[in-house]
Amino acid sequence: MVYCEWGKVMKYDCEHPWAPDCCDHPRSCHRPNFTKVLDHGYVELIEHWGSDERIIESARMSTNKGFEGWDKDSKLLAYLWKNKHHTPFEMAGMTIEVQAPIFVFREWHRHRTQSYNELSARYTEMPNLYYLPSGARVRAGKQSTKNKQGSQEGFTDVEGGDIILDLRASYADSRDVYEALLAKGVARELARLVLPVAQYSRMRASANLRNWLQFLTLRMDEHAQWEIRQYANVVGELVKDKFPRTWGLFIE
Amino acid sequence: MVYCEWGKVMKYDCEHPWAPDCCDHPRSCHRPNFTKVLDHGYVELIEHWGSDERIIESARMSTNKGFEGWDKDSKLLAYLWKNKHHTPFEMAGMTIEVQAPIFVFREWHRHRTQSYNELSARYTEMPNLYYLPSGARVRAGKQSTKNKQGSQEGFTDVEGGDIILDLRASYADSRDVYEALLAKGVARELARLVLPVAQYSRMRASANLRNWLQFLTLRMDEHAQWEIRQYANVVGELVKDKFPRTWGLFIE
Amino acid sequence: MVYCEWGKVMKYDCEHPWAPDCCDHPRSCHRPNFTKVLDHGYVELIEHWGSDERIIESARMSTNKGFEGWDKDSKLLAYLWKNKHHTPFEMAGMTIEVQAPIFVFREWHRHRTQSYNELSARYTEMPNLYYLPSGARVRAGKQSTKNKQGSQEGFTDVEGGDIILDLRASYADSRDVYEALLAKGVARELARLVLPVAQYSRMRASANLRNWLQFLTLRMDEHAQWEIRQYANVVGELVKDKFPRTWGLFIE
Amino acid sequence: MVYCEWGKVMKYDCEHPWAPDCCDHPRSCHRPNFTKVLDHGYVELIEHWGSDERIIESARMSTNKGFEGWDKDSKLLAYLWKNKHHTPFEMAGMTIEVQAPIFVFREWHRHRTQSYNELSARYTEMPNLYYLPSGARVRAGKQSTKNKQGSQEGFTDVEGGDIILDLRASYADSRDVYEALLAKGVARELARLVLPVAQYSRMRASANLRNWLQFLTLRMDEHAQWEIRQYANVVGELVKDKFPRTWGLFIE
Repeated sequence: MVYCEWGKVMKYDCEHPWAPDCCDHPRSCHRPNFTKVLDHGYVELIEHWGSDERIIESARMSTNKGFEGWDKDSKLLAYLWKNKHHTPFEMAGMTIEVQAPIFVFREWHRHRTQSYNELSARYTEMPNLYYLPSGARVRAGKQSTKNKQGSQEGFTDVEGGDIILDLRASYADSRDVYEALLAKGVARELARLVLPVAQYSRMRASANLRNWLQFLTLRMDEHAQWEIRQYANVVGELVKDKFPRTWGLFIE
Repeated sequence: MVYCEWGKVMKYDCEHPWAPDCCDHPRSCHRPNFTKVLDHGYVELIEHWGSDERIIESARMSTNKGFEGWDKDSKLLAYLWKNKHHTPFEMAGMTIEVQAPIFVFREWHRHRTQSYNELSARYTEMPNLYYLPSGARVRAGKQSTKNKQGSQEGFTDVEGGDIILDLRASYADSRDVYEALLAKGVARELARLVLPVAQYSRMRASANLRNWLQFLTLRMDEHAQWEIRQYANVVGELVKDKFPRTWGLFIE
Repeated sequence: MVYCEWGKVMKYDCEHPWAPDCCDHPRSCHRPNFTKVLDHGYVELIEHWGSDERIIESARMSTNKGFEGWDKDSKLLAYLWKNKHHTPFEMAGMTIEVQAPIFVFREWHRHRTQSYNELSARYTEMPNLYYLPSGARVRAGKQSTKNKQGSQEGFTDVEGGDIILDLRASYADSRDVYEALLAKGVARELARLVLPVAQYSRMRASANLRNWLQFLTLRMDEHAQWEIRQYANVVGELVKDKFPRTWGLFIE
Repeated sequence: MVYCEWGKVMKYDCEHPWAPDCCDHPRSCHRPNFTKVLDHGYVELIEHWGSDERIIESARMSTNKGFEGWDKDSKLLAYLWKNKHHTPFEMAGMTIEVQAPIFVFREWHRHRTQSYNELSARYTEMPNLYYLPSGARVRAGKQSTKNKQGSQEGFTDVEGGDIILDLRASYADSRDVYEALLAKGVARELARLVLPVAQYSRMRASANLRNWLQFLTLRMDEHAQWEIRQYANVVGELVKDKFPRTWGLFIE
């Protein structure tokens, strides 16, 4: 049997596992608003609401007026943003679906103003998908001597290759134990104890625009771990696409 | 000059003051999804997001599946609701505009999970609109002897009429002082000190469906004051219209 | 009968109505941690938890260490504050009691991360206490020509005196109607319709230190209305007293 | 060298590794309000604020009264709880420290109203502590046939012993890779990729009493995984100790 990147049995021997109907994933793999992240992850826009205009309309409640055209209102939007009048930005928002490793979700879930629904390792067998960093990432993954939480350049190609082999072997060993325990009839909620935090999981996340921008402020920052930054960058692209004027102010 | 129900000068001598272009209100008075409440208030749906189907999709994240049709999934929706698995209901929501007296907004704003943008008495002159209860409401407005916070039947037509005259005269006196102070050049933020809590104000309010349902649980309840209940009932109609299956479970 | 500043019958003919047992207010008027604000308002510290040290301890969870003395840790506290690592500041907090006019509470309650319990005009008769600005405040209360929401210097002593008389008369008229309606048996929840937003109310408010500091950022600002700024300044004094090192960083 | 249960080098050859100064853990292991949970975890009360009396005081704000003694007020407390007037319960709270496996923290952190500060695998090497279920737990850890997320009785002593050996070996292998990667100079943020979700971590958590009770409602429930239930039971004991009357109503 052949598995696609989702850990699902592929129905067709297609070249590109993201093509439609390549696997029995509940929804087609071929989707607009879908962006791959890392080796097996993705961010997909499920829906958005509100707009740059809606933000102006809500801000104008205070003065009993409405949206009056961007000639005049681009100034107001900039004023709201720069003076931290953030409540009008709560009148828009986005729901996304994300596939990411557990250690990324651990950081993500510290954002307590988002709503989450995630894959449950108690209800279902976890997919056979583990985050393996690229060679470039590993070579830049030496413990930083400048800051305690970061990493820096430093490994050779050979050293990097060895590290990747170490990770891959460890994931494979853990997966073998996981599957063996399930085969013995051990409950999913216990068998999962051996799964590493590189294990991919999946969730829906929903928040208003103010809270997404706060998420991006922290997670697009250079102090954020490189992996969650890749996700934040894609969320940023979605904001740019749906709320272009707000985005313009955000990145200034 | 003739004023419409918004306290705005009417442009046309139209029969129906809610007809389009009857006044210079920033947006047309003739709007779909617009429902009058009390004597000068309203609730208008600005937008909604998500759906009953979306709630199922989000709940199914836990088992790695999607929406499978209501034949099967109406059971799941009922299970979620009855077992208080409320997070999937955060994946939908509504933004509304509300015109209501200040004492209603005082109760409304205790719901801290909603987002608000309201008319500011510092930025703009408040509209000449005050809540005058109907005869029926006043006749049923005797201090309850059964519960400390409520009211009950008890006044005659004549008594009720007198009470309405008292309220109306007091509002007019306060408004006169307010306008006189503004005419003298007193700042709006100080002149408003005399305005009664029957003063109408206006806001946008946005929340996810879980939080709207929590609002309705408290504010459609018979212990809620009659006035805010009228608003909650209209919000309930919007939920019924946009999320009919969730509504069906809510009112069971 | 003589009434104290609480609108309560004074038991003793004491000179200072805030002295202990001067009135039948449920708790003594003579209290530590009690500060008068405006003409009839106050802020009282009910209790606080956590400390500057506790904030360090919580931040040090990340590196598996504890508090190590201020010689070393004053730097860490400054680092946390300046780099917006705000979660450790959630490990401390304060509960206060506040008496303030309704228009101040209207602004206060927009802070949705605080917990509130307030006097209910449905359950009890509101106290005969209304905010009357001082002569100095009124003379500085002309509508600002520089910014739409503010006020500025400009009235003469005579003009200011007239404005104060206007306010006082309007409050008295509204109060008379309120009491007359109650005397007729009208339910408290309806009689209160005529009460002006200068009406004093009372509440308990509780929040963690991070949220109190956010409150102070907005409400000690010169763009905040002068009245709520007086309350914020007193809350600031409480923070200064209980969390002196955090306060030192906040006001930098 | 001998390691204590914290993965720290023991200074003394003491019998009881939890005795004071047995290891170089930043704070003494001998602490009041400290309860062991699972094999290497604990819950420790750091501090609490408010009280059953304070809850009454706050609720009485609405009627302009204070605490009047439990003869009268035990009824009021019961009324508040049963009629879901939950805001007075926000006027009390607790801060605790918790050591638990990552899979428990993953469930815990879904409670978005708590404040958290946790050990960071980017800043520090994770302790060599992994959750190994007891024999009794494993024997009761067969995949349930009644409900999809649970486990049930079913393994023999021999089968259970084998499962424990499988888990232990897998943890040891993962730990070896982790330490080898660190020894090679791989950044902590990457080396941790292989760590299993049975890895112990540590955090401070703070919340008001209303939110702790909501946590207990979900996590003391029989549908919660057995491991997090052990933590919730200890939190429940703390609530019982500090807020006995509220606890009495909660468990009814």
